[in-house]
This record gives sequence, structure tokens and C-alpha cells, in this order.
Amino acid sequence: MNNVIDFINTNRDRYLEELKEYLAIPSISALPEHAADVRRCAEWTAAEMTRIGMQNVRLEETPGHPIVYGDWLGAEGAPTILFYGHYDVQPVDPLELWESPPFEATIRDGEIYARGSADDKGQVFMHFKAIEAHMKQNGKLPVNMKIILEGEEEVGSANLDNYIKDNKDALGADVVVISDSPMFDRGIPSICYGLRGLVYFQIDLRGTKSDLHSGSFGGAVANPNMVLAQILSQMKDKGGRIRIPGFYDEVKELREEERAEWKKLPFNETRYRKELGAPKLFGESGYSTLERVWARPTFEVNGILGGFTGDGAKTVIPAVAMAKVSMRLVPNQDPDKIAELFESYVKKIAPKTVEVKVTRMHGGKPWMTEFDNPFVQAAGRAIEKGFGKTPVFNREGGSIPVVATFQEILGLPSVLFGVGLPDENAHAPNEKLDLNNFHGGVIASAYLYDEVAGINKDGGG
Amino acid sequence: MNNVIDFINTNRDRYLEELKEYLAIPSISALPEHAADVRRCAEWTAAEMTRIGMQNVRLEETPGHPIVYGDWLGAEGAPTILFYGHYDVQPVDPLELWESPPFEATIRDGEIYARGSADDKGQVFMHFKAIEAHMKQNGKLPVNMKIILEGEEEVGSANLDNYIKDNKDALGADVVVISDSPMFDRGIPSICYGLRGLVYFQIDLRGTKSDLHSGSFGGAVANPNMVLAQILSQMKDKGGRIRIPGFYDEVKELREEERAEWKKLPFNETRYRKELGAPKLFGESGYSTLERVWARPTFEVNGILGGFTGDGAKTVIPAVAMAKVSMRLVPNQDPDKIAELFESYVKKIAPKTVEVKVTRMHGGKPWMTEFDNPFVQAAGRAIEKGFGKTPVFNREGGSIPVVATFQEILGLPSVLFGVGLPDENAHAPNEKLDLNNFHGGVIASAYLYDEVAGINKDGGG
Repeated sequence: MNNVIDFINTNRDRYLEELKEYLAIPSISALPEHAADVRRCAEWTAAEMTRIGMQNVRLEETPGHPIVYGDWLGAEGAPTILFYGHYDVQPVDPLELWESPPFEATIRDGEIYARGSADDKGQVFMHFKAIEAHMKQNGKLPVNMKIILEGEEEVGSANLDNYIKDNKDALGADVVVISDSPMFDRGIPSICYGLRGLVYFQIDLRGTKSDLHSGSFGGAVANPNMVLAQILSQMKDKGGRIRIPGFYDEVKELREEERAEWKKLPFNETRYRKELGAPKLFGESGYSTLERVWARPTFEVNGILGGFTGDGAKTVIPAVAMAKVSMRLVPNQDPDKIAELFESYVKKIAPKTVEVKVTRMHGGKPWMTEFDNPFVQAAGRAIEKGFGKTPVFNREGGSIPVVATFQEILGLPSVLFGVGLPDENAHAPNEKLDLNNFHGGVIASAYLYDEVAGINKDGGG
Repeated sequence: MNNVIDFINTNRDRYLEELKEYLAIPSISALPEHAADVRRCAEWTAAEMTRIGMQNVRLEETPGHPIVYGDWLGAEGAPTILFYGHYDVQPVDPLELWESPPFEATIRDGEIYARGSADDKGQVFMHFKAIEAHMKQNGKLPVNMKIILEGEEEVGSANLDNYIKDNKDALGADVVVISDSPMFDRGIPSICYGLRGLVYFQIDLRGTKSDLHSGSFGGAVANPNMVLAQILSQMKDKGGRIRIPGFYDEVKELREEERAEWKKLPFNETRYRKELGAPKLFGESGYSTLERVWARPTFEVNGILGGFTGDGAKTVIPAVAMAKVSMRLVPNQDPDKIAELFESYVKKIAPKTVEVKVTRMHGGKPWMTEFDNPFVQAAGRAIEKGFGKTPVFNREGGSIPVVATFQEILGLPSVLFGVGLPDENAHAPNEKLDLNNFHGGVIASAYLYDEVAGINKDGGG
């Protein structure tokens, strides 16, 4: 590997210049006036992939923006990585808050500022440069590699699922690698091995056919706002535990090793609380804040509305009240099953005084690859070699739907191999990528392929 | 009294023609473009009062529309009635829903349709005609009478309290008579002897300094929507009883006679429920629907708002949540004291995870004159003579602030002597007054003065 790493170190400046060129293309997928730029970016991406030695490179047309595909399958007997990323970027509004033009990559204080620098062109390009180094020095990669890069990640990936389903066999691999997330904190590289799922509902209550005067009718009928409050308050006990019967049945408990690992993380609860502006943190009894956010399910009331909400006072008993509620799910909770449990519970606890309608909005499955999975551990060793630091193995509280898709359709584990930072401004003005993280990321990626190559195809070390 | 009643019967048609003239003046107090009409109506009212024999008739100027005053104080040794009403009317929008022009009184099926027919010109005019009959036949009234008619009742009576305070001595009387309310039901004349009070609040909760992503932060902090639901749900127990400590301490329990009287009322709970469109009625255990609405306090959530309430789904933990809540109060609850109890209870049950602010909006005292008060009973006898039916003695769930004002500032009991109907459309298109009720009301009013004259000034029979 030394010759590969030498190549990366030697070409560090050139890599940066090429990255600037990539970042100069305003591939904003959300804006129709940038459709040509998105295609130009797909073509630039494909040309670069061909240049670094990928084969069968092509644009896969979709009803929206194209997917760029390429592979290199010359490592006979070695595992296959399916690398996923995206070449489209977020819009740049409000433009006036950018300190340098979003599509003229600018270096300040060791960071490169540009739209797409962290999310996700910079992290895609990091792999391109790792592949290039292997190819230039050894004429081959240590692993087989398939790459799919979509142009619609920032607009909901409407065409990705169908593409994966339609090409299920062609996309066969041993592990998915995605570099599209931040590390735990500056100077603390991490491997994220779990994400939460989601199930989202609207609850509509109707008490009477129209709003009523609270003087003339107050006392005679149930108030939908109050019934809603009563229903919602029965969703959690005082200890923050969700009261939906059966809700926790499939929850995979935290392993002792995970809890021990996370306890060691430099997480300052007071600083965290102050940054959020919360008088006091609150969550499920018996779990730390990180455990609550990363590995425990939640019940949130995302919105409530009923009756008179303007300035002043109106003495009304509303006819209707509404809440939007959602649950973050953890392995091995199934959104469909949780939805059923929730709907049954609402029906059970709702009084006969109101009509109740529960509408399921959308959802996604939770995802996890065990932290001691050989691919995850291989990624950890690669990060350690690239950054000179043992990474932390963490989970995240949010959802990345594509990860669940790869698990579901292709049956593949994923490795989230991200080198962004929590303050990278991914969807905000002044998006940036730390140059040391980029360079370390190229080295780590090069090592990743090598580490994965050492794993038996059945997943053994 | 026979000569008085004969006069009323003989002049029935003329009365109606005069009423039409009164209703033709569009005295809409809410609309500046009708200011001249309001004044013209005040002047018409004053002229009519003078014509029927009232003395000292004058317009009392206020910062808004004038109050019309007049008196007749020639019944030495007899009690004094302070008659209150209003000559202003509601706006007429939406005009296209009126079946006949709102200021061209039209008779259909025994009812007179016009804005102000029931609320309140028609009921004021009913007393004018009763006074006229006494004066024409006997040259005097059996009681002393002071009349104040305001022109701002439909816009909040902003100047009435000050007028009453400034003229406290001049307005001295034994009983207040108000005819500005509907009777219990068609064919069921009634005397209302109690109204509920009100105290209204806004509750504001803040959990964090800004909205949070429910994936990244769900589980770490309290959700203000949920905390709001928990606070609100602790306001009532399952039996519908309010849980604010001390809330019921001053509540005057229903007298057995009241409960027995109300049980006899032709109140069809199924019809009532269906008209409201409620799946099931609900209220405080141990009380009937009428008792709950007329004589028991309530806690209502008039409005709730927090987080995302648009179409679709947004995975947000809101920074803030808000509720508007109010309590209807019954004798002898004091709004100030109840406000203190409520605020203390919210502070006590609110968790430390959110900032809570309680803002008191407005309120009013409950009012009651015992149903066996001699003036109330006198009114009952008068109604019986006018309508040929024993009236029911009921209370109402709403509030009429001026009644509490008369009680508070002047220390006077009030008699609500209304001949409207529940379907009179008081603030809606096609406002109407039943002509039999108007005629019966003139006779009943004439008897009322006679019955009141028979009461000792200290209130004895």
C-alpha cells in the first residue's frame, strides 16, 4: 500500500485543483433552470470515472436526472464494494449569506468552501482519487467495485429505488459504502453503523359538525382539543417510555459494548443543552442522551392545531382538532407493525365522544450493521490508518432511506464512511469540507479497499 | 289592568307598523359609515320615549355612540325598575343570504324578519308599547322607571361601565330588567336567572431556542407539543371534573328545587346531540346536560397550536407550543381567585424541561338572582299572564357582562325577561322575531310593571 499512499501524498495539490473544477458545476437538482448543469455534471463525473480506470461507465437515464454507473470487476475472488453517492447539490439561497461564491471553491483556514464540498461531491471525489492512486500504481484495485451516483438525492431520490430493483442482479455486491455523512466531531473520526427508521401519522378528531360557543355549549360536549391532549398524553409515561402496547417488543437492546464505547465519547451534556437552549434535557429513563438519540425509539408530536389560534380571545369549542405525530424506530422495529400497534392503541384509548381518523403519511425502516461486522471493522481500520486515530463507532438518530433500500432490495450491509463535520453547513450557506479530512479520507478510502479485500466474501475476517 | 291590556290588543297592528319604522334605521355600530344612522336611531328612540310619556329624555354623549336616557319617577313609594337595552344592531353580512332586505322588515309565517328584530330593538320596543298602554289609559306607570339604551352593545359596550359608574346615584333602582335573550324554546316562555362568568388565558411553552430535527434530536429533549398535551390533560379527570385544586371551593351547588324544575323541561337529549352532530354527549359526572351547561363550571381548550400544521409531513420538534384555554364560572366563583388557582396549578404541574408563560386575557363574573327572588317571581307571573303559560326558570351557559356590571356597581338584581327564540338568528342573516311573542311580550311587560309595583322596596313580596 505504501506506493498508493505515496501517490496520494504527492498528488495532494492536483487533487484539490480537480475537486475545485468538479465543485464549479452548479448541479442543483431542485431547480429546472439548472437541468443542463446537472447533466453536464453527470457527464463530467462519467468522464472522470473513465479517466481513473473504471469500466462500463455510462449514464443510466431515468424519468429525472441520470444515474452515473461504472464498475471495475477485475479482482477475482475478492469481495465487491457497491459505492453509492450523489453528484447533485442543494440550492444556494440565501446567496447573500455566502462569504465566497458557492460555485467558486475557495480555501480559507484549511477548509474548502463550496456548495457540494461536503454533500456529496467532495466525498465522492475522495473515492475517485483513492481509486486513481491504486490504478496508477498497481494497475488494478484490490477489490471489485461498482459505483452508482445519483443526481436526485437532494430532491427525494424518486427514481433510485426503481433503478436498484430493475438492476438487482447487476448491482450484486458484498457491501455498500456510502460517504455522505459527518464524523462525530472535529478530530474524532467515526463510523456510523446504525440509523433510525420513521413512521409518521396525522390524527384528526371531530367532535361536532361546527364550532360551538363555549358559553352556550360548554359542559355538554367533549372538546376535541382536550380529547387530543388526552390521547397524546397517554402515548408516554412520566419516565418518557412509550405506552403503545407491544411498541418495544422488537426493539433490539443496546449491547453492553456499545454502551461502554459511547460512554467514552467526549460528549458534553451541558454544552449540548445550552446550544439547544433547553432548560433541561429529557428522555427515556435508564438511557444516556446519546443512547436515547441513536438507539432508542421516540414518539414526537410534530404539530398540533385546533380551534382559535389568532391574537386575542375567542370563546369557541372547536369542531375539529389535528395532530401530526411520528415515531423514530430502531432495529428491529418494523414500520408497518408499529403503525398497526399505534392505530389500534389510538382506537382503544379514544373516547366515544369524538370521531377519530388516523392517516399514515410515510415511513422508513431502521437500519443497522452490527459494529463488529467485518466490513464495519475493516472500515474502522481504514479510518485509523487514514486519520491516525481510532474511530468511534456510533449510530445516528436520523434516517437515510437509501441505506434501508440497499438492505431491503439487495440484502447488503452498508458502511457509512463519512468525513464531513457536524458544522459543515451541508444544506446552508458556506458549505465546507476540511482539507485534512479530505486528504485523510482519500488515504482511508485507499486503505478501505485493501481492508475489504482481506475479508472472505462470506463476511468472515 | 284590563284597560291596559285592551289598549295593547286594540293597537296591535299600529305597534307593528311603528316597529317596522324603528327596524328600518340601519344602526350598525360596528361600521363607521353607519355612524350617522346610529345617531339617527338614538334620536328616533329618544323621540319615541318622549312620545310615550317618559321624562328627562336625553342623549348621553360618550366617546362612542350616545346612550339614550329617560325616566318616569311618579310612582311614589313604589319600586324603581332600571330598564337596560340597546338600539344598535349587528352588521348584515353576508347580505346575499337574507331572504328579504335586512332593513325592510318583512312578515312571513307569523314572524317579522329584520336586523334588530330580536336583538334588541324589537324587545326594547315591546317595553315602549307596554309603557305607552299604561300611560294612555292611566296617565301613569305603576312603578318608577329609568331607561338606559346603549348604542355600542354589539361592539363591546366600551363606554357603558364608565357611564354607570359616573351616574351611580342617578341610576339607583330596585331591579334591572333586560329583554335581550331568547326564551327556552318555542312555546316555552322562560325567565333566565343565572349566567356563567369567564376567565381566559393563553399558555405559551418554549422547549428550545429553535425548531429541531426530530431525527437528530428526538429523544434528547422534551417536546413542547407533548408537554402542552400533558398539562392540558391534567386539567380534567376522566369524569370531566376539573382538577385545579380549590377550583370548586366557592361553587354554589344546585338547589334541589332547581334540579327538579329543570328535570321537567322538555329537553330532548337525542335531538340536541344530533343537532350538534356529536357522536356522544359528555360532561361532568353526576349532572344532567342542562345542569352542566347552566350551573356547572367548565374548562375548555379554545385553541392549540404548535409545530408543523400544513399539508404533508415535517419531522420537526417544535421550539414552542401554545394553547388558549378558558373556564366558564358559576356563582360564587371569583375570576381573580380562579385565575390565581389556575396559574399556580400550571406552574406546579409543568415540568422543568420547558419555559411556561401564562397570560390572562380577560374575564367576567358569574351572575345569579335566586329564582325565588321576589322580582324574578314577579317576572314569572307577568310572563304567565302575557303568554298564558307558566314560564320555566332557567339559567344560561353564556355570559352577559352588563348583568354582572349592574350587580357589581349598582348592587342590583337583574331579571332577564326575553321573548326571542333559540332560532332567532340574532347575529346571522334572516334575524326574526315571532309576532305572537312580541304581542305576548308587550302584555307581559305591562303586567311586569304591575307585579313589580306590588313588591315592597326592600324586596319582600
